[in-house]
Order: sequence, then C-alpha cells, then structure tokens
Amino acid sequence: MTVRVQKYGGTSVGSPERLRAVAARIKAVRDGGEPVVAVVSAMGPTTDQLITLARQVSRDPSDRELDSLLSTGEQVSVALLAMALQDLGCDAVSLTGGQVGIHTDDRHRKARVLEVSPDRVRAELDQGRVVLVAGFQGVNEAGDVTTLGRGGSDTTAVALAAALGAGSCEIFTDVDGIFTADPRVVPGARKLDAVGYEEVLEMASLGAQVMQLQSVEYARRYGVTIHVRSSFHNQPGTIIQEASQVPNPQVITGVSYDPKVALITMAGVPDRPGVAYQVFSALAKNGINVDMITGQMPQATITNMSFTVHEDDLERAVALVEREADYLGAGGVSYDREVAKVSVVGSGIASHAGVAANMFGALADAGVNIELITCSEIKISCIVRQSLGPSAARAVHRRFRLQEAGKSAVS
Amino acid sequence: MTVRVQKYGGTSVGSPERLRAVAARIKAVRDGGEPVVAVVSAMGPTTDQLITLARQVSRDPSDRELDSLLSTGEQVSVALLAMALQDLGCDAVSLTGGQVGIHTDDRHRKARVLEVSPDRVRAELDQGRVVLVAGFQGVNEAGDVTTLGRGGSDTTAVALAAALGAGSCEIFTDVDGIFTADPRVVPGARKLDAVGYEEVLEMASLGAQVMQLQSVEYARRYGVTIHVRSSFHNQPGTIIQEASQVPNPQVITGVSYDPKVALITMAGVPDRPGVAYQVFSALAKNGINVDMITGQMPQATITNMSFTVHEDDLERAVALVEREADYLGAGGVSYDREVAKVSVVGSGIASHAGVAANMFGALADAGVNIELITCSEIKISCIVRQSLGPSAARAVHRRFRLQEAGKSAVS
Repeated sequence: MTVRVQKYGGTSVGSPERLRAVAARIKAVRDGGEPVVAVVSAMGPTTDQLITLARQVSRDPSDRELDSLLSTGEQVSVALLAMALQDLGCDAVSLTGGQVGIHTDDRHRKARVLEVSPDRVRAELDQGRVVLVAGFQGVNEAGDVTTLGRGGSDTTAVALAAALGAGSCEIFTDVDGIFTADPRVVPGARKLDAVGYEEVLEMASLGAQVMQLQSVEYARRYGVTIHVRSSFHNQPGTIIQEASQVPNPQVITGVSYDPKVALITMAGVPDRPGVAYQVFSALAKNGINVDMITGQMPQATITNMSFTVHEDDLERAVALVEREADYLGAGGVSYDREVAKVSVVGSGIASHAGVAANMFGALADAGVNIELITCSEIKISCIVRQSLGPSAARAVHRRFRLQEAGKSAVS
Repeated sequence: MTVRVQKYGGTSVGSPERLRAVAARIKAVRDGGEPVVAVVSAMGPTTDQLITLARQVSRDPSDRELDSLLSTGEQVSVALLAMALQDLGCDAVSLTGGQVGIHTDDRHRKARVLEVSPDRVRAELDQGRVVLVAGFQGVNEAGDVTTLGRGGSDTTAVALAAALGAGSCEIFTDVDGIFTADPRVVPGARKLDAVGYEEVLEMASLGAQVMQLQSVEYARRYGVTIHVRSSFHNQPGTIIQEASQVPNPQVITGVSYDPKVALITMAGVPDRPGVAYQVFSALAKNGINVDMITGQMPQATITNMSFTVHEDDLERAVALVEREADYLGAGGVSYDREVAKVSVVGSGIASHAGVAANMFGALADAGVNIELITCSEIKISCIVRQSLGPSAARAVHRRFRLQEAGKSAVS
C-alpha cells in the first residue's frame, strides 16, 4: 500500500495542545488504513531560541556545532509527537534524520541530500507503526549531524516520499496554500489550486517564503507531487506538480515582492574580457549569491555594472567589490539598501510578448520608477524604491487580474 | 600522554556565563599541554522542563521516547560548550553518546553500559581537539538513544576514562566533595579527603545524592579513581578509590539520612518455605526495589514480615503485596510513610564490634525509638520516625565524632 508522507511545520506543532491536534489528525489517517510517515519541524520559536543561546556563548558559532545544537529542536518535537500518538492508543516511533537514512554532503547548515536509505522506516511501517521523522537534518559520512537550511524539513518530507515511492507528500503549514502574491502585501492575493515546480522555484528564489528551494527541486527531479495545505482545517491547499499537468494553466502565476535586497553599482569598469568573472567569482568564493546583474557596455571602453545581493550580505559584498575595483582600476563602488524587487512569474511569459510591456505600464501608471530590469523565460524582475515596493506589487497584481480565478490577463 | 577526563554537572553549565567559565577552565588544562575529554550534563533544569513537556502530551510517556527527548538536553549543552571553547580560540568538537561509542543494553531510562569504543574520541584528540561528550546517553544495538538514569553523566565519564586508559576522572559539581553527612541535615558534616568505592556505594544506596551508583560500580570494576570537586573554585574535593589505598582510613566514613522511604508490614504470614520468594519476586518483576527486610519467625508458624521501599513505589508495592497476602492467606498488610532511615557507613564496621552498640546508644540518648534494623559488612541502618530523623542523624554523627578529621570514635 502507498505510504502517506506528511510534514508538519513549526507553527503546527507549536504547543502541547497543537501537538495533540496533529496527533489526532495523523491517527485519523492511520485509522483509515494508510501507513503514515510524518516529518516534523521544531516547535515554534525553538530554533531562534537556540540561536540566541549560541550567540551568548560565542561571537561566531561554528556551523558544525550549530547543526548539532539546532537539530535537537526537531528531536524534541518528534519525540513529543510520538508520545502524543501513543497516548491516543496509536503505535508510533520517532526517528532522527540519521536513523531514517538521510545522507547528506558535509556542508553544515545548508547540506544537500545525497541519498536516502529508508530501511528502518520500512521496518517500522511493517510493524504497523506511524513513523515520525525529525525534519531538517541528516548525517554526513563521518556520522555528524548536518542540517538542510531553513525550511529543510520540506526537503526531508519530499526526499522520503521519493525514497518510499509515495508519489506525493503533504506539507502542512500555517497558511492555506500558495498565493498569487503575499497577502500581507497584496490584499487581493488569491490561493492557487495548482502550480508548476518552476514557477514555485522562481517565486521562492524571488523572496516568496512558500517552500524551500531545495525541496521543490528535489520534488521536480523525482516527480513527487506536493500538496501545501493548512494544518488548522481540512480544506485543500495548493498542488505543486509538473507545469504540463496543471489544469487550466495561466500565463502569469503570481507576483512576488522582496524588500530584502540591496543594489551595488561599480562605476567606470574597464570593458575588457574577464572583468565580470573576476568580480563575481570573488563573491561566489565567499558564499555571496548575486541575483540580478546588468552591465551597460555599448561602444564605450568604460562601463557601469550593477547587481543585487541579499541585504544581509551587503557589507561583506561591498568590501569584496571595493577590493576588486581597486585591483581593476575601476572608478568606485556605491550601494543602495532602500530598494525592493517586484517580479511577475509565469510559465507563459516567454511565449506572450505583452507581459513585460504590461508590467512596465502598470508601474508607470502607479508612478514607480524602474531602476534595474532582468528577465528569464518565466519571470520579469524590476528593482524599485523600497518605499514604493508594496504599491508597485499591488499595481502589477491588479494589472494582470490575478485576484480573479482563471483570469490572468495579458493584453 | 594520559588523557584528562572531566565531567561537568548541570549546575556547572547552568547558564551561558557558567558555560563560558567552564570553557575557560578546560582551556587552561589544554593550554597546559594535556589532552582533555569533558563530559557534560544538561543545563540546569532542562531535563525537568522536558519531562514536564512530555507529561503535557501524554499521561504515560514511553521510555524509548523519553530517552530520545531527554538526550537532547545534553546535546544542547555540549554543542554550546564547544562553541564557547572555539570562541576562546581553543579547537573543540562536541560528540553525542552514540558518536563516542557508548554502547548499552536496551533498558531505556536505566540502560547499562556494555562497551565503549572510543575510536572517534581518539581520532579527535589526535587532531589536538578538546572532545566534549554529551553525558547520560548511549545507543543500543538498534541505534536508538538510551539514557543511563539520573546522574548517568558520571557513568559516561568513568566509562570513557576506563576506555581511554586515563586511570582517573574528575567530577565537577556544585558541592565541594563527599561529606560525612548531608550538611543540610547535619551542620557539622565534614568534607572527606578520600573514601573507598564500597563506602560511597553504600552511602549512595542509602540516599546520599553524591554519585550515581552505576558510575561508582563501573569505577571500582575498572580501577578508575574519581575526584569529586567543585566547579566554582580550585580547592581539592574528595578522591574515591580502593579502600585499601585511602590514607588514614577511619572505622566510620559517614552518616546518611533518607526520609524517602516507606515501611510495609505483612502480618500473620504462614511460615513455610517460598513465602518470601513469592512476595519479593512479585515486587522485583514490577521493578520495585526492596531495601531493608526483617522477618520474625522464631518457633511460631505464623510470623510478621517488614520491609522498606522508596516512597514513590509505595502505592504499587502495597497493591502487589495485598494480592500476594490474599493468595497466601496472610493476616493483612499495613504501611507507614512517616518513617526515615538513618545509617552509619564505614569499612571498619565489621571488624569493630562496638559500632552497633554505639549507634543504638546515641539514638536512645536522643530519645529516638528504632523500628527496624539491618546490618551489612559496612553499614548499619535504622528506621525511625521521620519527624525525629534529622536529630537522630545529628546524634549519631556527633557520637562518632565525625565532625573532627581523623577522629571517628568507636569506644
């Protein structure tokens, strides 16, 4: 029989009462005859509390020890959930990431899953037990605990679903599903019934905090369908699947808004081969992700180059870029924190020429100046003043009629 | 070079400040050139907090899941201590009980150490690292976490000292060492410089909360000398070693006092072979430890039998004994919670006839009636009214002049 793989987020298990509610929900599925594997996150604010403790004993805690420390949060919630299920008369066992065979590389704090060997999970399921899995964690070759990055429990669930041949997994969370935009920014945002992997990946990479990137990549690679839904009621949420399988696909899926970006500009860059490589490889070597990049280099021999980084990386990035600018004999480095990124995402963008024009029109009508533009097959992103960001996102959302089901408009 | 094995108790690592103080103490040893392995308990009240959480989700949490839950307390403190050491520029690594190769049987919550395979510890020491070990925990054959009972971190330290050939280990705690009596009960109690394993075992089993029994047994078996000392200053504490090695040995080592006992009496027991076996095997099968036992069976065919149990076990014990009494046709079962046990412990008791008489004399002079007596080679225990217990302990302590160094008097 197919295994039902579920994942419960930190808010869903945030108190003893909620743990008991989750236990009751799992028991109902088990009582229906389906084997259940449930992946669980740390209770509510546990992870942040542990990080606070770490900072009280060390100015710069090592990643290996942070992984050891943080992984205890999930071990606590999963053991408590096992107890709650046993208290309801439902046989259950809790297992750590290592025990369920989540083998990762050894990049602590952002490890990637290499292999899943779920023999122990299968053995426990064969005993008729509900298997509760500590999310977010694995073990490297040395047997040390690694963690999969924030939201890594989603990856645990997807990886287990793939390894167990479950075909799908349910991600229970504190929101109703994936929306056309963040409802806190765009009040008219609408819940999507279904959406393709690529679009979710773009929305996540653009700052929409719906799902962890790695988990969606993993799901796409192994063909695992994800159902993102609320743990507080029984309404269906959003299905993440192959774009080709999404019923009634729309040109535009949603609008994402990310205020946590910063813009860096290098002026007077000598326009010769290898310059961009030198700057961006220095950033990459230091683990700094660069997002949007534009260079204006028409006929000039001296040019400007702008790009964005996460605002948390700004100081380190500026220091590195200044060193490279010195070395290259560039004019100077400036930066701007007060920017935000507004993007439209949709699998139909490449095949519908009007999308970019429509987006720029919406921003112009809203009186929003565009400071930087980048495009891909399925997204268009604009950097705007941060103070205008939310109204820019609302204007774009309205222009594409995303508040109305089945009505995304490209005219 | 010989490894220095240390253990720090929960109070010693009870706050970020104390963790940093412990880190500084460990670093000082390491800077002196000695390899260090430090076993660490959970921070302060962590274990109790976790037990409270468990009771909020389950009326009767399973031992396996409690072990998974409770073992996280030590993982947290050991990771934090590693960070604190690294912050002081001292290379350190934290390891779980499983990672340091503490293999146990699978009696969850009171597992016994079967074998220690410290390959990983040796490898880390060879790298010049301080090795920080999560105490109190091991793994069973299935790879599940087990715990060694309250105070189990002491056993972890002793077992590692034995496996690493360290010969000794230091137990840092919040008291100055082992005393002739509990100073809260007997104000004149004196710290012992050295004491034999057997005497500590007796004192511990008689209710003195100095060291976990299993750890002292393990130390005796493997010839590991234990130094119990304060983590708050640098004064020497108490050395636990072979009685034959204790300098200037005394007839009486100390007086212990335990108010947490209850007395059960079975009246009108038919005096035939196998009766005691039947009663006490029923208790043993249910995990209830029986301490003092006396039966009066001179020429009579009907007799009384009295024994003590831990007061937490009283209700279950009475229920079991009542069932057996019914079956045996005994007269009835009565019990008494308001009793306490006062004991003298000393390796010289067997060879000094006057000890018992002296003890009874001290109690008589203090107006304390003795309700039950048991003796062994190295202890004499008396059950008295609980309300008179502390003054009884003080009277006995005074009679043997235990407040004066090298003066234990048997006259």
